[in-house]
Amino acid sequence: MSKYIAAAIAAGLAALATSYGNAKVISKTVESMARQPEIAGTLRSTMFVGVGLIEAVPILAVVVAFLILFV
Amino acid sequence: MSKYIAAAIAAGLAALATSYGNAKVISKTVESMARQPEIAGTLRSTMFVGVGLIEAVPILAVVVAFLILFV
Amino acid sequence: MSKYIAAAIAAGLAALATSYGNAKVISKTVESMARQPEIAGTLRSTMFVGVGLIEAVPILAVVVAFLILFV
Amino acid sequence: MSKYIAAAIAAGLAALATSYGNAKVISKTVESMARQPEIAGTLRSTMFVGVGLIEAVPILAVVVAFLILFV
Amino acid sequence: MSKYIAAAIAAGLAALATSYGNAKVISKTVESMARQPEIAGTLRSTMFVGVGLIEAVPILAVVVAFLILFV
Amino acid sequence: MSKYIAAAIAAGLAALATSYGNAKVISKTVESMARQPEIAGTLRSTMFVGVGLIEAVPILAVVVAFLILFV
Amino acid sequence: MSKYIAAAIAAGLAALATSYGNAKVISKTVESMARQPEIAGTLRSTMFVGVGLIEAVPILAVVVAFLILFV
Amino acid sequence: MSKYIAAAIAAGLAALATSYGNAKVISKTVESMARQPEIAGTLRSTMFVGVGLIEAVPILAVVVAFLILFV
Amino acid sequence: MSKYIAAAIAAGLAALATSYGNAKVISKTVESMARQPEIAGTLRSTMFVGVGLIEAVPILAVVVAFLILFV
Amino acid sequence: MSKYIAAAIAAGLAALATSYGNAKVISKTVESMARQPEIAGTLRSTMFVGVGLIEAVPILAVVVAFLILFV
Amino acid sequence: MSKYIAAAIAAGLAALATSYGNAKVISKTVESMARQPEIAGTLRSTMFVGVGLIEAVPILAVVVAFLILFV
Amino acid sequence: MSKYIAAAIAAGLAALATSYGNAKVISKTVESMARQPEIAGTLRSTMFVGVGLIEAVPILAVVVAFLILFV
Amino acid sequence: MSKYIAAAIAAGLAALATSYGNAKVISKTVESMARQPEIAGTLRSTMFVGVGLIEAVPILAVVVAFLILFV
Amino acid sequence: MSKYIAAAIAAGLAALATSYGNAKVISKTVESMARQPEIAGTLRSTMFVGVGLIEAVPILAVVVAFLILFV
Repeated sequence: MSKYIAAAIAAGLAALATSYGNAKVISKTVESMARQPEIAGTLRSTMFVGVGLIEAVPILAVVVAFLILFV
Repeated sequence: MSKYIAAAIAAGLAALATSYGNAKVISKTVESMARQPEIAGTLRSTMFVGVGLIEAVPILAVVVAFLILFV
Repeated sequence: MSKYIAAAIAAGLAALATSYGNAKVISKTVESMARQPEIAGTLRSTMFVGVGLIEAVPILAVVVAFLILFV
Repeated sequence: MSKYIAAAIAAGLAALATSYGNAKVISKTVESMARQPEIAGTLRSTMFVGVGLIEAVPILAVVVAFLILFV
Repeated sequence: MSKYIAAAIAAGLAALATSYGNAKVISKTVESMARQPEIAGTLRSTMFVGVGLIEAVPILAVVVAFLILFV
Repeated sequence: MSKYIAAAIAAGLAALATSYGNAKVISKTVESMARQPEIAGTLRSTMFVGVGLIEAVPILAVVVAFLILFV
Repeated sequence: MSKYIAAAIAAGLAALATSYGNAKVISKTVESMARQPEIAGTLRSTMFVGVGLIEAVPILAVVVAFLILFV
Repeated sequence: MSKYIAAAIAAGLAALATSYGNAKVISKTVESMARQPEIAGTLRSTMFVGVGLIEAVPILAVVVAFLILFV
Repeated sequence: MSKYIAAAIAAGLAALATSYGNAKVISKTVESMARQPEIAGTLRSTMFVGVGLIEAVPILAVVVAFLILFV
Repeated sequence: MSKYIAAAIAAGLAALATSYGNAKVISKTVESMARQPEIAGTLRSTMFVGVGLIEAVPILAVVVAFLILFV
Repeated sequence: MSKYIAAAIAAGLAALATSYGNAKVISKTVESMARQPEIAGTLRSTMFVGVGLIEAVPILAVVVAFLILFV
Repeated sequence: MSKYIAAAIAAGLAALATSYGNAKVISKTVESMARQPEIAGTLRSTMFVGVGLIEAVPILAVVVAFLILFV
Repeated sequence: MSKYIAAAIAAGLAALATSYGNAKVISKTVESMARQPEIAGTLRSTMFVGVGLIEAVPILAVVVAFLILFV
Repeated sequence: MSKYIAAAIAAGLAALATSYGNAKVISKTVESMARQPEIAGTLRSTMFVGVGLIEAVPILAVVVAFLILFV
């Protein structure tokens, strides 16, 4: 196995992770906004904070992928 | 194993990730629009933001796939 | 392993991804149209946008498969 | 591993993908037609469009399988 | 691995795919016919069209299996 | 690996496929007959057609198994 | 790998297949008989036909196993 | 791999198969007897027939295991 | 691989099989006895017959394990 | 692979099997005792019989493990 | 593979088994105590007996692990 | 494979086991306390006993890991 | 296998872990805020504490990944 | 395989374990606080104790990872 496989695994798992996490949070936010339209702003701002927190570690994994590829 | 396999894994996982994430968000948006048609615009704009956030990291994985293939 | 396997993996995962994603969105759209027939047009246009967004990255994976096969 | 395995994987995953996707859409359409018989035409035309969209990428995967087999 | 394994994988996955897809559509049709007996004809004709659409790509996979075996 | 394994895989997957598909259709038919006894004939004839359609491709897979074994 | 493994795989998958299929049909029949005791005969005869249809292909797989073992 | 592994796989899968199938049928029968005690005899006789039908093919798999071990 | 592995697989799968099957039947019997205490005797005798039927084939698998170990 | 692995597999699967089976029966018994406290004695005695029946074959698997280890 | 792996597998599976089994029984007991506080003592004593019965075989597996490690 | 892998497997499975078990018990306790706040003390003391019982065997697995690493 | 694979596994599993954990907590918080808007502040502060607790160990895993890569 | 893989497995499983466990406890606590806001303090303190108990063994697994890496 070469380092290409390692970079592919790290980047692929990061893609799966963010998609799973973001999809769960955003779809639940959309569902809650349809149920309580009057607090849509609060929900959407919580969603943005949550998406940011979810993407922190996967971005690190992508960084690891680039490090593996170029270092 | 060669670098071809690595590119295929990265691109394939990215495809799976975006499809899973987008499908969950869009289907929930369609369901919510059918339940609350009067805020369809708000829901659809939230959906577009969400889809953009979901596709960010998988696009990076596709970039990793192209890098593996050509570099 | 040869590059044939790599192309097959990339194309096969792309096929699985689009089928899963499109099936989820379209079946939910059909269900919602049967529940709220009066906004069938809005739902169907949202479905077309969603299907387009879902197929973007898998098409890239198919492109990766063709690149692996011919380059 | 030879190129025969690669063609078999690509064709087999494409078969699984279309069967899963089409079965989900068609069975949901049949269920919705039984619930709302008066809009059966609209649902069936949406189903045909959806089936076409679902089969696009798997057909590409079958093309990849034939390419692997004969090129 | 030989080409026998490849033919077996392609034919076996095609068998699994059609069985899964057809079973889902037919069982849902039977269920819907028991719930709405007066539109049994419409449902059954939709079922035949659906079964035909589902079996298109698996038949291609079986063709791939025969091609692997004899070419 | 020899051709014996290939024949076993093809025949085994065909057995799994028909059992899964037939069991789903027949059990749903029995359930629907108990719920609507007056249309038992229509349901049973639909079941026979469905079972025939489900077993078409697995029989092909068994044929592939015999071909692998004797050719 | 030898032909013993192949025979074991074919026979084992056939055993799993029939058990899964028969168990689903028979348990659903028992449940339906307890719900509608007056049509117990019709349900049981449908069950026998169904069990026969389910066991057709697995018996073929067992035949394949014996062929592998003795031919 | 030797023939010991093959016998163990065949016998083990047969054990899993009968346990799964019998457990499903018997537990459903017990549940139905508690719901309709007046037809307990009919249910139990159907159960015995069903258990016999379920154990037919796994017994064949055990026979295959003994054949592998001693022939 | 040696024959020790084969005996361990056969015995381990037999243990899993009986535990799964017995647990399902006994827990369903306990649940039904709590719901219909007046037919507790009938249910318990059915349970004993069922447990005997479930353990028949796994005991054969254990016998296979001992045969592998000592023959 | 050595005989140590075989003993570990047999003992580990036996541990998983008894834990799964006992946990299902005991938790269902506790739930039923809380629902029908007046027949707690009958339920608990049935539970003890059931636990004994469940642990019979796994104990045999542990015996197989000790045999593998010392013989 | 060495005997270290074997000891790790046996101890790890025993840990998984007890955690799964105990968690199921204890959480169900806590739930039942909150529903029927007046028989909390009976439930808790049944829980202790059950936990003892569940941990018997996994402790044997840990013993097997220590035997593998030191003998 | 070396003994490092063995220690990692044992410690990792122990971590998974305690997290699964404790999470199930504690979350169920929190849920029950919110439903019946007046017996929160009884529930929490049962929880502590249960957590202790759950962690006994995983701690043994960690001990096995340290033994593998240093002995 | 090289140390690149190890770093990729550690970083990828950490990405999956944080995404799963954060997504579950944040989506449940959004759902609860839509149900009880008047205690949105309390829920959000609990969410921040929880996200911090969840990310502690995965960050350690990323640190392990960087250590593997550079040490 | 080297010791890098072992450290990555131990750290990755520990990350998965804490994320799963903490997410389950914290999300259930948030849900219960929204249902019973008046005992939010009791629930949150129980949550902190539970999180501490859950993280004990995974931290040990991380320690094992560091030991593997540096000793």
